[in-house]
Amino acid sequence: MAKTGVTAPLGFKASGVACGIKENREKDLALVVSDIPATCAGIFTKNVVKGHSLKWSMKAIGRGTARAVAINSGCANACVGEDGDRDAFEMASLVSRLVGCEADDVLLGSTGVIGYRLDMDKIRTGLEEASGLLSGEGGTDAARAIMTTDTFPKEASRVYEHGGHTITIGGMAKGSGMIHPDMATMISVITTDANISRDMLDKALRGAADVSYNRISVDGDTSVCDKVLILANGLAGNPVIDSDGPAYRAFEDALKAVAIELARMLAKDGEGATKLIEINIKNAPDRNTAHLILNAIAKSPLVKTAIHGCDANWGRIITAAGYSGAEFDPDKVDISLGEIPVCKNGRAVPFDEAAALEILRAPEVVITLDMNQGTVTDRIWTCDLTCDYVRINGSYRT
Amino acid sequence: MAKTGVTAPLGFKASGVACGIKENREKDLALVVSDIPATCAGIFTKNVVKGHSLKWSMKAIGRGTARAVAINSGCANACVGEDGDRDAFEMASLVSRLVGCEADDVLLGSTGVIGYRLDMDKIRTGLEEASGLLSGEGGTDAARAIMTTDTFPKEASRVYEHGGHTITIGGMAKGSGMIHPDMATMISVITTDANISRDMLDKALRGAADVSYNRISVDGDTSVCDKVLILANGLAGNPVIDSDGPAYRAFEDALKAVAIELARMLAKDGEGATKLIEINIKNAPDRNTAHLILNAIAKSPLVKTAIHGCDANWGRIITAAGYSGAEFDPDKVDISLGEIPVCKNGRAVPFDEAAALEILRAPEVVITLDMNQGTVTDRIWTCDLTCDYVRINGSYRT
Repeated sequence: MAKTGVTAPLGFKASGVACGIKENREKDLALVVSDIPATCAGIFTKNVVKGHSLKWSMKAIGRGTARAVAINSGCANACVGEDGDRDAFEMASLVSRLVGCEADDVLLGSTGVIGYRLDMDKIRTGLEEASGLLSGEGGTDAARAIMTTDTFPKEASRVYEHGGHTITIGGMAKGSGMIHPDMATMISVITTDANISRDMLDKALRGAADVSYNRISVDGDTSVCDKVLILANGLAGNPVIDSDGPAYRAFEDALKAVAIELARMLAKDGEGATKLIEINIKNAPDRNTAHLILNAIAKSPLVKTAIHGCDANWGRIITAAGYSGAEFDPDKVDISLGEIPVCKNGRAVPFDEAAALEILRAPEVVITLDMNQGTVTDRIWTCDLTCDYVRINGSYRT
Repeated sequence: MAKTGVTAPLGFKASGVACGIKENREKDLALVVSDIPATCAGIFTKNVVKGHSLKWSMKAIGRGTARAVAINSGCANACVGEDGDRDAFEMASLVSRLVGCEADDVLLGSTGVIGYRLDMDKIRTGLEEASGLLSGEGGTDAARAIMTTDTFPKEASRVYEHGGHTITIGGMAKGSGMIHPDMATMISVITTDANISRDMLDKALRGAADVSYNRISVDGDTSVCDKVLILANGLAGNPVIDSDGPAYRAFEDALKAVAIELARMLAKDGEGATKLIEINIKNAPDRNTAHLILNAIAKSPLVKTAIHGCDANWGRIITAAGYSGAEFDPDKVDISLGEIPVCKNGRAVPFDEAAALEILRAPEVVITLDMNQGTVTDRIWTCDLTCDYVRINGSYRT
């Protein structure tokens, strides 16, 4: 089987270790390193409150190149004042010495509980161990080390040919609670051996995030530490992609595929989730209307519990659309669950309850809302709301 | 004990019967009648989708006077097309004949499942029975008949003296899911024997709703059928309140007290809730900032599950403030749970976990967020998010 994840592209090594931040002895420190300086780009949380490790990365990304990404789970390194900034700087400095680069070439991530300082003794020891374990096979260990309440590591990759060159994109992601559109959805690191300019890499990342990470919602919360980072080291040897054109579009398509695969995994692994829900909107008048309606439906606890209970209660779907803030004519709206129409022109239509039940019992449920008042199509992924979500989040800190 | 609820003021009768719309034989049809035409005002859902009974009331309220309010539970009379409008008209016509007024003098409400037609045979029989049972002691029966997933009937009243006249305000409310600010929070009917002009009644209702019904959130969903109606029949004999002044302010204060008491009951009886949560914001720069932040915290499933689990995870509170859309300086924010400071200047402060646990275990939890960047104070009530919420809403329709 071909390699997947962040070590799939040429010239990337990774590792993941248990340094003791998580009390359960699970992996909690990930390191991803490119053999040579890589062009980098990032998208960061829009939350007004920003974690200290995140703030470090926002600054470091400005250089446009990076060698390494270090991410710990179990502690968000957020809301602890200047100590948190100092700890982030020390973490980057430690990695730089181990990898042989400048501190500014190290991007950071911290995810976990807010309001507690990083245990720097554990980070120090852990980074040394992680550095010694760096390997071309270490992607899955790294993916595991960034997990918080995730139930499985999330990795994806795509390989494509263009102009006689083979280009690989790999990625990992974490985060199953505090997930919502507008970036700040999770932590994801993507690597590629493509040779691509900073500007085009940034553009491709934003294009891909827009159809993937910004199209998932678990509970509507956006965290203070979330980001997606991409590193491109150029080892595929292709002529540099520095403008729009077939080479760029091939890269963007592959990047979108990786990002969408990771985003779907995030929604599917939403805290306590038993089902992936895909909500499609068709024939919306404009993108903003589509966005408002998709978000309201995906965030509605009433919709999410109904799907969990396999209850074809489409009234909650049109209700959520109605309070979304979008202006539209509800009397033109059609709603389907899977292929079954349940509402036509804003009104109930008779449907086969047994067939609907079968659709709702599946692990993936598709809801389609056809507005019949425009041409815009969009979609979002979310998950059902379950008792396990309540249990997980009633005792996360303790 | 003095009477409370909608039959507390002079000249109001009410009743509540089980007409068979609810399958469990519980009361599902309420009637409230004023002996003489009453001045009326109303506030209606902002949901783009509007139920047929609600649309009727929005039209009828325009006359400025009403004699009766009829409300059924168990069926929302929404999203069923022109049939729903016809059913609403027939329901109002039936009441008008029974009470002896015009159909336009009858306000309606329907609450329950969307997408099903009202069973008009049951409504017909039920209204006749309800009409026969109208009584000055029937307020609680009416309050019971408008319940859906509520676990207790909600009634409140205030009696005050002004200028030698005794004025009474009574009210009832229902609705424990699909509750959120911006009206459309629930169904509430308020009655009063005050003599007050339409304009001042409308103004007082909006003022009261702003500090009560618009300050509660159970799950962020707003329904298609929700409204608050007020009827003032003038039987207290006070000189008409037709301008601002001491008489108006005394009325508005009493109305606010009734509305706040009902609103707190709604939040406390949130679906599956075990705790009332009051969130206070202090020293906000402006009302909109306060509103955005309070809403985000009250809607956050992560905050609501943490409080349910008695976990003093204040990081989720500042996180919700951070993604609320409000612009502010997080480094000035203080957060307290009850009287215990847990965050100062945006940073963790050490606190006594045992004392925090005691505060979080109480049936009412107060969270205070002091922004230290202005002078605006506001508050919102919500409840915790529990497994019972998921259970109730996973099988509401079936």
